[in-house]
Amino acid sequence: MAENNKKFVEQITSMDEDFAKWYTDIVKKADLIDYSSVKGCMIIRPYGYAIWENIQKILDTRFKETGVENVYMPMFIPESLLTKEKEHVEGFAPEVAWVTHGGSERLAERLCVRPTSETLFCEHFANVVKSYRDLPKNYNQWCSVVRWEKTTRPFLRSREFLWQEGHTVHRTAKEAEERTIKMLNIYADFFENDLGMPVIRGQKTEKEKFAGAKATYTVEALMHDGKALQGGTSHNFGTGFAEAFNIQFLDNDNTLKYCHETSWGVSTRIIGGIIMTHGDDSGLVLPPAVAPIQVVVIPVQQHKAGVLDAASKIYETLKAAGIRAKLDDSDQSPGWKFSEYEMKGVPLRIEIGPRDIADNKCVIVRRDNREKSFVSIDNLIEEVNAGLDNLIKALHEKALANRENRTYTAHTLEELIKIANENSGYIKAMWCGDRECEEKLKEEADVTSRCIPFGHGPIGDKCVCCGREAHKLVYWGKAY
Amino acid sequence: MAENNKKFVEQITSMDEDFAKWYTDIVKKADLIDYSSVKGCMIIRPYGYAIWENIQKILDTRFKETGVENVYMPMFIPESLLTKEKEHVEGFAPEVAWVTHGGSERLAERLCVRPTSETLFCEHFANVVKSYRDLPKNYNQWCSVVRWEKTTRPFLRSREFLWQEGHTVHRTAKEAEERTIKMLNIYADFFENDLGMPVIRGQKTEKEKFAGAKATYTVEALMHDGKALQGGTSHNFGTGFAEAFNIQFLDNDNTLKYCHETSWGVSTRIIGGIIMTHGDDSGLVLPPAVAPIQVVVIPVQQHKAGVLDAASKIYETLKAAGIRAKLDDSDQSPGWKFSEYEMKGVPLRIEIGPRDIADNKCVIVRRDNREKSFVSIDNLIEEVNAGLDNLIKALHEKALANRENRTYTAHTLEELIKIANENSGYIKAMWCGDRECEEKLKEEADVTSRCIPFGHGPIGDKCVCCGREAHKLVYWGKAY
Repeated sequence: MAENNKKFVEQITSMDEDFAKWYTDIVKKADLIDYSSVKGCMIIRPYGYAIWENIQKILDTRFKETGVENVYMPMFIPESLLTKEKEHVEGFAPEVAWVTHGGSERLAERLCVRPTSETLFCEHFANVVKSYRDLPKNYNQWCSVVRWEKTTRPFLRSREFLWQEGHTVHRTAKEAEERTIKMLNIYADFFENDLGMPVIRGQKTEKEKFAGAKATYTVEALMHDGKALQGGTSHNFGTGFAEAFNIQFLDNDNTLKYCHETSWGVSTRIIGGIIMTHGDDSGLVLPPAVAPIQVVVIPVQQHKAGVLDAASKIYETLKAAGIRAKLDDSDQSPGWKFSEYEMKGVPLRIEIGPRDIADNKCVIVRRDNREKSFVSIDNLIEEVNAGLDNLIKALHEKALANRENRTYTAHTLEELIKIANENSGYIKAMWCGDRECEEKLKEEADVTSRCIPFGHGPIGDKCVCCGREAHKLVYWGKAY
Repeated sequence: MAENNKKFVEQITSMDEDFAKWYTDIVKKADLIDYSSVKGCMIIRPYGYAIWENIQKILDTRFKETGVENVYMPMFIPESLLTKEKEHVEGFAPEVAWVTHGGSERLAERLCVRPTSETLFCEHFANVVKSYRDLPKNYNQWCSVVRWEKTTRPFLRSREFLWQEGHTVHRTAKEAEERTIKMLNIYADFFENDLGMPVIRGQKTEKEKFAGAKATYTVEALMHDGKALQGGTSHNFGTGFAEAFNIQFLDNDNTLKYCHETSWGVSTRIIGGIIMTHGDDSGLVLPPAVAPIQVVVIPVQQHKAGVLDAASKIYETLKAAGIRAKLDDSDQSPGWKFSEYEMKGVPLRIEIGPRDIADNKCVIVRRDNREKSFVSIDNLIEEVNAGLDNLIKALHEKALANRENRTYTAHTLEELIKIANENSGYIKAMWCGDRECEEKLKEEADVTSRCIPFGHGPIGDKCVCCGREAHKLVYWGKAY
């Protein structure tokens, strides 16, 4: 048993030694992905895809509860359509893949594979929105998009990735802003409560906002290594796209008006974020809400009379209670199995052997802290539910403590540079709002503005960079 | 009311007058699709996409019950990978879209947008299958694929379409054949029982089989106009792809063997099939299993006291029973609403007005035959469930009767040509197995072999074309 255990665990790099290598070890060893022969395009394997399916189910339900409807837009955008909104095309054209031939024929106009679908939705909205009665349209699609990135990493930055993109059109500016914030809050709640990932909600600076947006809001998470991850974004376009694409409606005062538009999205990056927030040197640690297997049942001394029966009964009880359970009665040793499901981040492990059966008990082991409880079989479901609840709370607490430990405050440029050189995390500092200062911080301290957080008061009145008057508190950091 | 009704119904062409135009009228007027600026690529609107989501939910559950796991493969295939299996590339290369540039750079090797993903799955299987213990792998993905067709029609033949493609690898030929047939039967049951579409199960001829397959099985449905629609296919590849991609495993007899492989798929074509099987001159008729709205509740004289309350109570009762219901209390006239939901193919309509309330009754109207029943509110759910059951049975019966009326038998070439010229439907005829005869029938009668049906005995012993000995009964016809 010890030997098996060792063999397995040795295959992954320690996170303190080399966080990047630890990360790629996990995505491979936990069977999340495989590489394909196209650089930067990954194969999402069953275990990885099942996590995504669980993310989809939760979010899709919550979107629909707010009146969102799913649609499907083509994956191709004609070059002339992509270039209709100027800021937008400047943001995306450098990194799109171009289709130039269909079969053996050269196309009259080349098509890009969607990097995002604002232009397609706009064109459609212009077709179907005529009157205020047609508003709002709250649309979403689950699809893959392509961005021809130079440097790629599984889940975090790949040339093709899966996401959802919501696109809505509204009658008033107020309604659009409300939708933008509503979706941001759905994302934030999902990160906090379902994934145990504390996030900062805030607004992006002009420099960091989405190409073509009036305002971009974001939820920012901090990874174990102190680097930030943009978890999801929600954009208010105002009437910018509507003007470029002529999306007008006849209002009830009989005048033609431009629609107010939003878009919002999260992607398979989330899976990378889960790994880097909760994982440890034994592998993944999955939040129960998205874990493909929430509880694995492992019989100990399974050749002994009654063990497999008892294990199987536990498994059936879990399944009947709606818990995603797996019974591993393969001929591998218990030790091998322990390592395997630790690597896969299964939240709870139940061990059951001859002695436990005699006592009408089993052992529940939590993945995050390895805490063992001997529980009565009669209270199995209660104990399992409590274990899952405690685990997600503990994950959140641990991640929050990490963020708090890694949040710094700077009042001068020197201070900020020193902190950025010596630590990894968020640096809170006041900013005057000038792009030049933002660029200077990037140059001198290698940090970018993560967001202007909601509801955090000022911590001074001078810009950390130029010393002029400043009203905006910014979270600065290095990001994935 | 009559006026509104008329106005709406006049917008669609009669199916007897022009079936093709009737079809495209429906896909537009029932809000299923919109055209995009890329020819042959359609936008699937919320109502159309909700049908697809229902199809997905049912099939995905059934696939998973047989041990299938979902994955995601990249959308790009390098040219060198596509060309690894010879028959396969010959079948698909003429109709793929080619990506030649990423951003502003020309790619070293061009990539095709997947027309189907056998080559990607094979490459992955070669990576992950080492031992007989790794088998079987039963994988599936839901995605979009691209085929650069010259002539396109919404749902039936578009340049991009949504589908699922299952890909499995097995230890033995027997297991692969069983999986191929198992998936064909899942499709057939879905068509028959959930969609009310009778299908013929059978095998494709060499000429019509999938590029690279050893055997292709199909479920073939007959549309209202007598043309056939291939509803779904399931392929047994034998070891052909495994040899081309070197997918070998070490068996328990310690020898290296090639895997046996299958693939199987259905697509958004199904929606086209539903329209052309069940639709009528008032619009769509949807099978309850996939209808986004199964029952629409329409208040009559809704300004009168108690009507909206009663309608809303019915709606809540339906929802609580798990029925997909909609209450339309908008200010359109009841007549307008009747037409609107007939166009959208909602299986049952419930009307409730002041008189009904006094009698504790409501009216249920079936979409397919307009049959009205006055039912007691106390039996609402039973009556609705009975109405939905009766409707799907009636749809199936009507479609079966249409197929029986349109199934002919030919013993000589002259007979076959005459039938093909004068009628539209299936022609049953014996075939010697020679490709030449198959091609001659195409030329002289403009029919293709639909399939060699399972379990249908011979109807003679001579080839309908050449008169030589023949053992194969073939269903011939014109197909979408």
